[in-house]
Amino acid sequence: MSMLIGFIGTGNMGFPLAQHLILKGFKLKVFNRNPKKTSLLVKQGAQRVSNASDVADNGQIVITMLSDDQALEQIALATDDLARRLGPGGIHLSMSTVSPQTARKIAQQHQLFGVSYLAAPVFGRPEAAKARKLWICLSGSQAAKDRARPILEVLGQGIYDFGEDVGAANVVKLAGNFLIISALEAMSEMLTLAEKNGIARAQIMDFISQTLFACPIYQNYGKALIQELYEPAAFRMALALKDIDLVLQTASESRTPMPLANLAHDRMVSGIAKGRGNMDMIAIAKSIREDAGL
Amino acid sequence: MSMLIGFIGTGNMGFPLAQHLILKGFKLKVFNRNPKKTSLLVKQGAQRVSNASDVADNGQIVITMLSDDQALEQIALATDDLARRLGPGGIHLSMSTVSPQTARKIAQQHQLFGVSYLAAPVFGRPEAAKARKLWICLSGSQAAKDRARPILEVLGQGIYDFGEDVGAANVVKLAGNFLIISALEAMSEMLTLAEKNGIARAQIMDFISQTLFACPIYQNYGKALIQELYEPAAFRMALALKDIDLVLQTASESRTPMPLANLAHDRMVSGIAKGRGNMDMIAIAKSIREDAGL
Amino acid sequence: MSMLIGFIGTGNMGFPLAQHLILKGFKLKVFNRNPKKTSLLVKQGAQRVSNASDVADNGQIVITMLSDDQALEQIALATDDLARRLGPGGIHLSMSTVSPQTARKIAQQHQLFGVSYLAAPVFGRPEAAKARKLWICLSGSQAAKDRARPILEVLGQGIYDFGEDVGAANVVKLAGNFLIISALEAMSEMLTLAEKNGIARAQIMDFISQTLFACPIYQNYGKALIQELYEPAAFRMALALKDIDLVLQTASESRTPMPLANLAHDRMVSGIAKGRGNMDMIAIAKSIREDAGL
Amino acid sequence: MSMLIGFIGTGNMGFPLAQHLILKGFKLKVFNRNPKKTSLLVKQGAQRVSNASDVADNGQIVITMLSDDQALEQIALATDDLARRLGPGGIHLSMSTVSPQTARKIAQQHQLFGVSYLAAPVFGRPEAAKARKLWICLSGSQAAKDRARPILEVLGQGIYDFGEDVGAANVVKLAGNFLIISALEAMSEMLTLAEKNGIARAQIMDFISQTLFACPIYQNYGKALIQELYEPAAFRMALALKDIDLVLQTASESRTPMPLANLAHDRMVSGIAKGRGNMDMIAIAKSIREDAGL
Repeated sequence: MSMLIGFIGTGNMGFPLAQHLILKGFKLKVFNRNPKKTSLLVKQGAQRVSNASDVADNGQIVITMLSDDQALEQIALATDDLARRLGPGGIHLSMSTVSPQTARKIAQQHQLFGVSYLAAPVFGRPEAAKARKLWICLSGSQAAKDRARPILEVLGQGIYDFGEDVGAANVVKLAGNFLIISALEAMSEMLTLAEKNGIARAQIMDFISQTLFACPIYQNYGKALIQELYEPAAFRMALALKDIDLVLQTASESRTPMPLANLAHDRMVSGIAKGRGNMDMIAIAKSIREDAGL
Repeated sequence: MSMLIGFIGTGNMGFPLAQHLILKGFKLKVFNRNPKKTSLLVKQGAQRVSNASDVADNGQIVITMLSDDQALEQIALATDDLARRLGPGGIHLSMSTVSPQTARKIAQQHQLFGVSYLAAPVFGRPEAAKARKLWICLSGSQAAKDRARPILEVLGQGIYDFGEDVGAANVVKLAGNFLIISALEAMSEMLTLAEKNGIARAQIMDFISQTLFACPIYQNYGKALIQELYEPAAFRMALALKDIDLVLQTASESRTPMPLANLAHDRMVSGIAKGRGNMDMIAIAKSIREDAGL
Repeated sequence: MSMLIGFIGTGNMGFPLAQHLILKGFKLKVFNRNPKKTSLLVKQGAQRVSNASDVADNGQIVITMLSDDQALEQIALATDDLARRLGPGGIHLSMSTVSPQTARKIAQQHQLFGVSYLAAPVFGRPEAAKARKLWICLSGSQAAKDRARPILEVLGQGIYDFGEDVGAANVVKLAGNFLIISALEAMSEMLTLAEKNGIARAQIMDFISQTLFACPIYQNYGKALIQELYEPAAFRMALALKDIDLVLQTASESRTPMPLANLAHDRMVSGIAKGRGNMDMIAIAKSIREDAGL
Repeated sequence: MSMLIGFIGTGNMGFPLAQHLILKGFKLKVFNRNPKKTSLLVKQGAQRVSNASDVADNGQIVITMLSDDQALEQIALATDDLARRLGPGGIHLSMSTVSPQTARKIAQQHQLFGVSYLAAPVFGRPEAAKARKLWICLSGSQAAKDRARPILEVLGQGIYDFGEDVGAANVVKLAGNFLIISALEAMSEMLTLAEKNGIARAQIMDFISQTLFACPIYQNYGKALIQELYEPAAFRMALALKDIDLVLQTASESRTPMPLANLAHDRMVSGIAKGRGNMDMIAIAKSIREDAGL
């Protein structure tokens, strides 16, 4: 294969993805705000460029994996350089967790230049990215999805197609994050109830995660909660607040009351207020225990 | 085997359990408030008695599987007949979902007569009981647990021991129910958010329950939510309210704030107020959709 | 006047009321579990009796002012001594804060003896009782209310009649307490928001309570919040939890979801869990500030 | 007096204020997007201008009374015309309800031109504006406040000074709105509890608002709730959502968890989802009653 791919954002999540593509024989142009983070990729054959939009070649594919809406908007919306360079037939494969609103705005701008925007946010932490174990949600025009599929198959263990609305995959990503954070709240309240009633936390968590809730989220977060693995953070509370803010913004705009999302939001706000913004988001369990006098 | 077992409460859950014991060769004396519900068991070899306490033989084991704290207290606490008939060395194997407080009160009274109380509440619906797929939580004195184990192994697919405090297994049962109801709330909010953003409910539920949440609770309840299987009820909302009331009572007495349990409580109260007490508890999803104008 | 009145419960609230009645010329028989608390009343002319039901004379009036449902039930329901001694034409004027369910149960038992039960719970703290500034809510049979009115006029600054259902006045009392606690939660969140945005707490509270909310609850509690008057308690958090529990019990039984009452409930539970059960209930503000990292 | 005042925004709230100023002898230049709304003022002596910034004279005062942050930003931040025309010594007296963040941003831009920004948001509905019964919160530089005071004294019944931080008065305004909406939630839950327990709504509301809560908010909103005055709206639910969104944004940025504000937010979102965005915000009571099956 010798498809030309541009890759913007080679941080914790983007780096292993770019690496997989190189190993599979794709030719990559890479950009990262901090160029050091592309050095190893360059050694492995990638071409480093000095402006984000320089990764784009006419009619080719550019992947972005950035930290938030602002970062993505700055690269893909603030100027039309990226869309212009991609040009007719180009595809912007956007893998960041952003709001559906942002996705739709960028898609609209891209259309003016004949570029297709694909939303392809992922579930999984950096280790999953390394292990090609990401789950990828996908939405956008069918033709673009067909072209992008071989790339995505290199990057994840499953691709889930949510139709042609570019915002759809982002909604699914936010909905999934909401479920994860809700499970964290539920597990933390449950563990506190158990502890205050003399039950060993590890024992009840084992039971729960081997039976009714024998699935990755309850097993992995359950273990982290029992071991109180607050630092170093796998996913910082400050980022979790950003995600839950996107959930609530999408909920508010679509007129959907979500009391459980509000509860999760307040847990993150409180945790950050208490100085735990750099701890893992599971540190909301600390507040839940404090509320119970522990 | 020819151990003598008394069995009180042969309703939806108790009946299949009693049947398994007969098939395994245990001699059963059975009692149910409505004697018709024991007829088939009698045909299969059980002996029907006309008072609950008549199922008890000196030093033997009595199993109770009743609908709530009141029903259990009436049989095991209001009079001391049951404990007296069981006598020294007797075991009361209590499989109902009741509060830890009730368990401890009865255990205390039983002790006066040399009877051991074992808490052995179960997870699983009637079909699981039929299929010997229940998960059984167990707590109480070690000697009694050792004697009861062969019986429990007939009834479930796994026995989880939570130590010697008779209330402990009940706390675990309530904690598990809380997690289930919390997952229902989370899934329902999530599905409503998806629906209001143009995502097909079945599609997002499939994705979720095949990946991050590939476990029985999300898969089974997810399917029920998508298909809106509100009636006939597998578990009536009025009973779910009873359970969440036990959770909140235990939480309040142990000084544990549980905002998510409160939220679930209000969902049940509202559903019943709207005339849905006999629907399945998953009908809380109707209210969540109504709140969003659907 | 020489009407004969029995008075049970001469604690912080009951004592000043009994005193007002003596000063107005009523003949009182008094009972308190701790007889020392009646000594001063005896000096002022009251007759001390040694059993609660001894305060009752045939066809006369007995006032009870007790701390909770249990205390009232023990005196008025556990035995029928009180009702029997009051006999036909007797009135039990019950001024405690209890649940409407308790009121209705006692009223039913009293009826068997020809005794009328009147619910007459009050708003106001001990100082208001001393100053005859209580507001009294009243419900029960019209004839009994007519007879009790001259007594109540001695005790409060206003009597509000809520009809013939004996439970009604209790519902009103609980509803009022709910509003007070809700206002506390609102003021505390508001003050924390102000503080975290650099506004002086006293200044915003002054503004609020001189304009939009120029009424006793906001002015008095506002002042207490600003001055952080947590101890000694005017109204202990543990008692406030009892009250909010009665609200939630009445709400649950009447199928009324009350999310704000749940929130208040969790504040009290958390406060008590943190060791503040003997502080004034306004100490929920401490938790609200802690949640914001203050 | 012959001070020259510019006035932008002569809608429901702005119109009566402009009129008071004219009647007091101030010379006004007025601007409204819809010029018809200034016709009567012109008859009374005001001068109509065709661009917003034309109301400004060098070193004078401009009052803005606009519907939201966007409207204010468009006039005072999107271009620097207004600040430039006001010039050194000029004062922008901003009476709209906007976020403290917006206030601070505009103040910063104004400073570049020597213009002082004063935040002067008000409490009171249009009738209060007509009757000169507004309460005005004020913050900004002392010199500017001293100059603006004679104008503000014409417009309201009381001026409350919150110091030199221009954002402060906005925080107070948002805090006050939060208290009002919280009181609405509390009253609505309370009335529903009463109704479901057979208490007449009007009767309990009368009692409450004559005693513990004898203040404008409880009296006026209490009356509106009892009479179910949902339409025409005095204050539309869609606007109330905007206000509570500002509260939550300010809370989130200052790391202040506000669960009661979240609850109010969801009430508004749900009401709008149900098609009640143009009803008065008190229509949240409809949802509260629906949740209770009424």
